[in-house]
Amino acid sequence: MHIDFHGVFPYLVSPVDAQGRVMDEVLARLCEDLIAKGVHGLTPLGSTGEFAYLTHEQKRRIVQVVVEATKGRVPVVAGVAAATTSEALRQTREWEGLGADGILAVLEAYFPLDDDSIHGYFAAIAGATGLPVTLYTNPNFQRADLSLPVIEKLSHIPNIRYLKDASVNTGRLLSIMDRVGGRMEIFAASAHIPAAVMLIGGKGWMAGPACVAPRASVELYELCRKGAWDDAMALQRRLWRLNQAFAKYSLAACIKSGLLSQGYAVGDPLPPQKPLDSKAYAEVAAIVAAFD
Amino acid sequence: MHIDFHGVFPYLVSPVDAQGRVMDEVLARLCEDLIAKGVHGLTPLGSTGEFAYLTHEQKRRIVQVVVEATKGRVPVVAGVAAATTSEALRQTREWEGLGADGILAVLEAYFPLDDDSIHGYFAAIAGATGLPVTLYTNPNFQRADLSLPVIEKLSHIPNIRYLKDASVNTGRLLSIMDRVGGRMEIFAASAHIPAAVMLIGGKGWMAGPACVAPRASVELYELCRKGAWDDAMALQRRLWRLNQAFAKYSLAACIKSGLLSQGYAVGDPLPPQKPLDSKAYAEVAAIVAAFD
Amino acid sequence: MHIDFHGVFPYLVSPVDAQGRVMDEVLARLCEDLIAKGVHGLTPLGSTGEFAYLTHEQKRRIVQVVVEATKGRVPVVAGVAAATTSEALRQTREWEGLGADGILAVLEAYFPLDDDSIHGYFAAIAGATGLPVTLYTNPNFQRADLSLPVIEKLSHIPNIRYLKDASVNTGRLLSIMDRVGGRMEIFAASAHIPAAVMLIGGKGWMAGPACVAPRASVELYELCRKGAWDDAMALQRRLWRLNQAFAKYSLAACIKSGLLSQGYAVGDPLPPQKPLDSKAYAEVAAIVAAFD
Amino acid sequence: MHIDFHGVFPYLVSPVDAQGRVMDEVLARLCEDLIAKGVHGLTPLGSTGEFAYLTHEQKRRIVQVVVEATKGRVPVVAGVAAATTSEALRQTREWEGLGADGILAVLEAYFPLDDDSIHGYFAAIAGATGLPVTLYTNPNFQRADLSLPVIEKLSHIPNIRYLKDASVNTGRLLSIMDRVGGRMEIFAASAHIPAAVMLIGGKGWMAGPACVAPRASVELYELCRKGAWDDAMALQRRLWRLNQAFAKYSLAACIKSGLLSQGYAVGDPLPPQKPLDSKAYAEVAAIVAAFD
Repeated sequence: MHIDFHGVFPYLVSPVDAQGRVMDEVLARLCEDLIAKGVHGLTPLGSTGEFAYLTHEQKRRIVQVVVEATKGRVPVVAGVAAATTSEALRQTREWEGLGADGILAVLEAYFPLDDDSIHGYFAAIAGATGLPVTLYTNPNFQRADLSLPVIEKLSHIPNIRYLKDASVNTGRLLSIMDRVGGRMEIFAASAHIPAAVMLIGGKGWMAGPACVAPRASVELYELCRKGAWDDAMALQRRLWRLNQAFAKYSLAACIKSGLLSQGYAVGDPLPPQKPLDSKAYAEVAAIVAAFD
Repeated sequence: MHIDFHGVFPYLVSPVDAQGRVMDEVLARLCEDLIAKGVHGLTPLGSTGEFAYLTHEQKRRIVQVVVEATKGRVPVVAGVAAATTSEALRQTREWEGLGADGILAVLEAYFPLDDDSIHGYFAAIAGATGLPVTLYTNPNFQRADLSLPVIEKLSHIPNIRYLKDASVNTGRLLSIMDRVGGRMEIFAASAHIPAAVMLIGGKGWMAGPACVAPRASVELYELCRKGAWDDAMALQRRLWRLNQAFAKYSLAACIKSGLLSQGYAVGDPLPPQKPLDSKAYAEVAAIVAAFD
Repeated sequence: MHIDFHGVFPYLVSPVDAQGRVMDEVLARLCEDLIAKGVHGLTPLGSTGEFAYLTHEQKRRIVQVVVEATKGRVPVVAGVAAATTSEALRQTREWEGLGADGILAVLEAYFPLDDDSIHGYFAAIAGATGLPVTLYTNPNFQRADLSLPVIEKLSHIPNIRYLKDASVNTGRLLSIMDRVGGRMEIFAASAHIPAAVMLIGGKGWMAGPACVAPRASVELYELCRKGAWDDAMALQRRLWRLNQAFAKYSLAACIKSGLLSQGYAVGDPLPPQKPLDSKAYAEVAAIVAAFD
Repeated sequence: MHIDFHGVFPYLVSPVDAQGRVMDEVLARLCEDLIAKGVHGLTPLGSTGEFAYLTHEQKRRIVQVVVEATKGRVPVVAGVAAATTSEALRQTREWEGLGADGILAVLEAYFPLDDDSIHGYFAAIAGATGLPVTLYTNPNFQRADLSLPVIEKLSHIPNIRYLKDASVNTGRLLSIMDRVGGRMEIFAASAHIPAAVMLIGGKGWMAGPACVAPRASVELYELCRKGAWDDAMALQRRLWRLNQAFAKYSLAACIKSGLLSQGYAVGDPLPPQKPLDSKAYAEVAAIVAAFD
């Protein structure tokens, strides 16, 4: 059992070919290599995993491939994202059935929702599974944000154990920690400075860039854990350039380009998204080349 | 053939029961009654139709029921909404195969898209069908808006013939008309004042509230067409109270409540959305009672 | 007395030279010419008048020059804009003392304000003067917007008689009219289509572009008043190109450039604002040349 | 000379009575006490100092009182805020003449400005004084933000030495540090976690809450400087509750209430702003009571 999630969880890309088939081999090889390089867990079907662009069959296949490649060595926290509770429960049950070790829960709203409805959605997911649930809120791309009162209320549900916050507001994380006591642990997203989040009490980070810099990400995590803050910040400054480069372009396109430059034929983001143009590709490849 | 779309197109609700089954009979009866009351067309799978909350099977069934109930008396313009081009083309081809008379095209973005990608998405839909295409942009709920240059460029594609704009910016409609000449006609959404849009050259409106006030909507359209502006404005002021009431609550919940109060058992909006509470229901029912 | 304000009120520019002196002569000549061309009133110290950029002495001089040039032929509605109630009252009393016929009241907030504070600010202005007060709200540039409940409450103060709304939301105007009955009349801003606002019951418009197209603006007003809607819309479409051009650039820079091209040496917008570059100037001059 | 600014700079409140007179004595006593409690500098006329609400005479008097009370013991960095370059230069020269040790430069825009104009405004201030200049950008309340390219360009002007960033985006600070090398140092605002900003290389913080918790703020700064991160975070968590409480209400009203509860009769925020109601006052007083 991987009940205590911590450390670096790369948000995996979703390699899909032009006919819509999941490219199993490259995805499995990426999982294998990331585990070999020390990552603490794997997250298929996050934002970087283009969950908003995949059919149910593609999502299902991706979870299956990642679980099989991982062979229980690290926890697999699989993304559940839906606009309806019924669709979220369907994914939750299927991913658990496929062997996922945790659920990353996302709400895809169209019309605005009140806090009570938002609470109901996440509580229903937690109620449908015995797995630990990680709440994921991203106010840039999702249309419903989690307010502090909703987060606090959800923290009292025993298997809602983690939160990944993808706002840019690091102070908000400290406010959340103050409210949820030890009931819920916080993971940073790539919009936060991981070392700063570790300083204030974070458990790690779940982020796309860790796909292309797994060793450095793990090293940064260990330095933070040991309290070697000067060394941590020296490495953090190097790694932050990766985040800055990726912030200039569309996230999925960036991570797919970075992996391509490292020899993983993960394909392009799903149309109508476009791959990076050659200039941006060269820029990303040059930065990624400093890591492995 | 219904090549010249104009007038009042109610955005139909999607009646789905607690088990996820489309309630065919009430939907067919609503279509029948709306046609009898003079509406000029029907639009399943718009925002009011909760397209963002339905499975593919539910969507397919809804288009089928509406086409069959309509029996060619008025055009059926069915909503296509997706985040990927491939999924949009799938829906477009299926709805055309089911007998739809037009496509209402919506783009559901997650990551930001450049104008070229947005153009590519809509152009691909138009290229996949012989039916007239209506662009639908709603900056309140969708994550990609159509810029004026993209609209102008799309207007040169022969079967992209209409635009429904759901911003609140009526001046934007006049700017669009100025750019697209006679190549594209404009429909208002419920956020605009229909009489004002008719004055500046609009062809009608596509909107949820017309489901509960079809006769008054059609009468308003006819008054505007005749240039009977004083009478039109007297009726418009009455009808605007409907829009104002609906703007206070979630749209799908409002229209479903209004129809329920008129004897159509269309059910609740899909969870985690909530139905109106009893106070809001009473308010909506009271306003709707003034219309039929 | 000009108690019934209606029609076209150009928002005057504020001609200030490089040493900060108000250029009296060109301002007086502009007022004279606008009155000769039929405008129904004049508004110094609106947005176009760069109220946010002027010292108290400059503002005072501008009101004085406009009142003297106007000689009571049309009403002068002078802008009062402040962040504190005390400063607003000072301006209100001085402008009344200088002979203004009405007050255009603007709230310049820094920290957010609750509705009660916003109401208090405007009520204090109305209480300090016997002149009719026009509320002016511009959600694009000002940091406090007027909510519908505040507008309704303010409409019960007898000398708060008019509202100029500079949102782009024309439907909001109809909602306001519905709430304020005959107690308050509505003027459009340049972001609305004047003909559409006249159709729904507006009294006219207060806007910068009328400085460079006074005759056409007055003609449009008269056509709307007569109910000659087809002719009104033909003219409106021509005039809208002016609004579209001006929407591309900074408003004060545009109107000053347009007036310059018509022979009024009104100078540049106050630094750090920049005048239009030569390409934009040529574009504005070409459009303005179609009007006088 | 205080050329190397660092540490805790309380943003001072502006005590103004109902007649608009600056209350010299309480302001001088507050400065005296803050210096006695170890703060590293004082900042009159920041956001907390309600610069947007004061007349020029009030501002001038406040700078005078603070400079005289400080007697050169710590640097006084006085706020300059204007919409025009000419007004900014006037304030800069006067504050330097009154004995200020540094300038905190703020741009108050109404119409949007391009980067070149924004650069020109701040460069003009720097060119008008020999004092070190601190850029202050607050995207929540000000209408022009400083982009990274503008910050980088301004960092090459020798006496532009510091930046206070009041966004909530802590990652942005690391990106700025990466761009400006050692040419510009970064101060945090109260929206950031000071300990996190110190970890990534910040020089201190300029913030209103330090007025009511000077000793704890100074202690936190010293712990961070020593690298005693565990103790720093224990204190930071206590201090963060202050920030959280203040984030619920209007900033100037909160700090004035907190000081009032500590025995400083600093009066109310300037109308139409309202003082805290009794419930909020009690909440703020209770939190402030834990500090001195």
